[in-house]
Amino acid sequence: MVSTRNPLNIGAAARAMANFGFARLRVVNPYDVAFREARSAVGAAPLLQAATEFATVAEAVADCTLVVGTTSIGHRELQHPIRRLEYGSKLIHRRLADAPVALLFGSEKFGLSNEDLSHCHWLMRIPTTDPGLSMNLGQAVALCLYELARDPAAVESRPESIRAASAGENEQITLKLLEALRLSGYINPVIADSTEAKVRRLVRRLDIRARDVPVLLGMLRQILWKLR
Amino acid sequence: MVSTRNPLNIGAAARAMANFGFARLRVVNPYDVAFREARSAVGAAPLLQAATEFATVAEAVADCTLVVGTTSIGHRELQHPIRRLEYGSKLIHRRLADAPVALLFGSEKFGLSNEDLSHCHWLMRIPTTDPGLSMNLGQAVALCLYELARDPAAVESRPESIRAASAGENEQITLKLLEALRLSGYINPVIADSTEAKVRRLVRRLDIRARDVPVLLGMLRQILWKLR
Repeated sequence: MVSTRNPLNIGAAARAMANFGFARLRVVNPYDVAFREARSAVGAAPLLQAATEFATVAEAVADCTLVVGTTSIGHRELQHPIRRLEYGSKLIHRRLADAPVALLFGSEKFGLSNEDLSHCHWLMRIPTTDPGLSMNLGQAVALCLYELARDPAAVESRPESIRAASAGENEQITLKLLEALRLSGYINPVIADSTEAKVRRLVRRLDIRARDVPVLLGMLRQILWKLR
Repeated sequence: MVSTRNPLNIGAAARAMANFGFARLRVVNPYDVAFREARSAVGAAPLLQAATEFATVAEAVADCTLVVGTTSIGHRELQHPIRRLEYGSKLIHRRLADAPVALLFGSEKFGLSNEDLSHCHWLMRIPTTDPGLSMNLGQAVALCLYELARDPAAVESRPESIRAASAGENEQITLKLLEALRLSGYINPVIADSTEAKVRRLVRRLDIRARDVPVLLGMLRQILWKLR
């Protein structure tokens, strides 16, 4: 994080790093002493306590083989290739397998300076709807780390599904419900057959879960008891 | 946003909504009058000004056909199906095509209450590394909206690439560089051929961009002029 003005944003970045499994936070020329205070405060997150401070971008990224700047573009003529977060993350991910990568975030107000940017191999932008609208710094950090940690397979992997009620269980419920409807006078005997079919279809549409079957049967049993 | 305590978080949520093209912010029972003040302040974002306030979750989600709660899980026995953000977003996306969907966020300290959760069809969780660690509310909102707006195709779509130097351009640079090396005494005449091949290969590995060719040739020309 370069020239960050608000220490709360450094804290928010540290929190997002902990959330997504990143460990090494480096700050370059933070705006005031508040950062040092926040870092040394009792109860500061371990990640924040371990953050290291540098005077220049060059020193902060010296051991990295890939340096990627973040930008909201829009107002500057950028001299770098710009990649969207989704694609850039894939490239970073590949490189991370064998060497440290630096991801640079600029100040809240001005972003990265041209001097900061000159240390970058390329830039990454978060695909916001309106590229003219800048993002909150803490949110931008969270999004980049989320995308880096994102598991593409998770889009397709259905979670364990909750078992649906079996046909037999649905029919048990249907029969109890029909009995209650008969006893309460809901079913017109002239068109009883068509009503029964309607009720049966309705129960199937409810997509009842297996674990809800005993609860529903209990409710119906109690209603039947009262109706009789 | 349900029972949000800090109006700054409502502001951060509104900013993330603007960033990713979402428009309808509803707040339920915000913690204090600060929200009303923030909303009516001169210079408040249009999205924040247009936010509507409700006393209960039931009223806030009344027109939605799908209600999804967000959670960091961990400390509660949840009675709902929980889906990871990547997969849940896909389901929400599909539903959004024909009906409004509500995405619920609880308070900073307690998340959604069991009563709030009972209005939800299912829950969505952000896949953090350590599920015991809660997320910053503003960051959680930004991540959910980012994932909802995410374009899966963007992972594969390479951006317009910056044109690489042609073989002819690389050779121009190579010849100028070899001349400079000869004039400066770098090349040992005995092994000149192998050195030339090394230099030629090195220039190709540099992966020079077309637009950098005139700059590099200019530098070499100047050096050659001085060497002579």
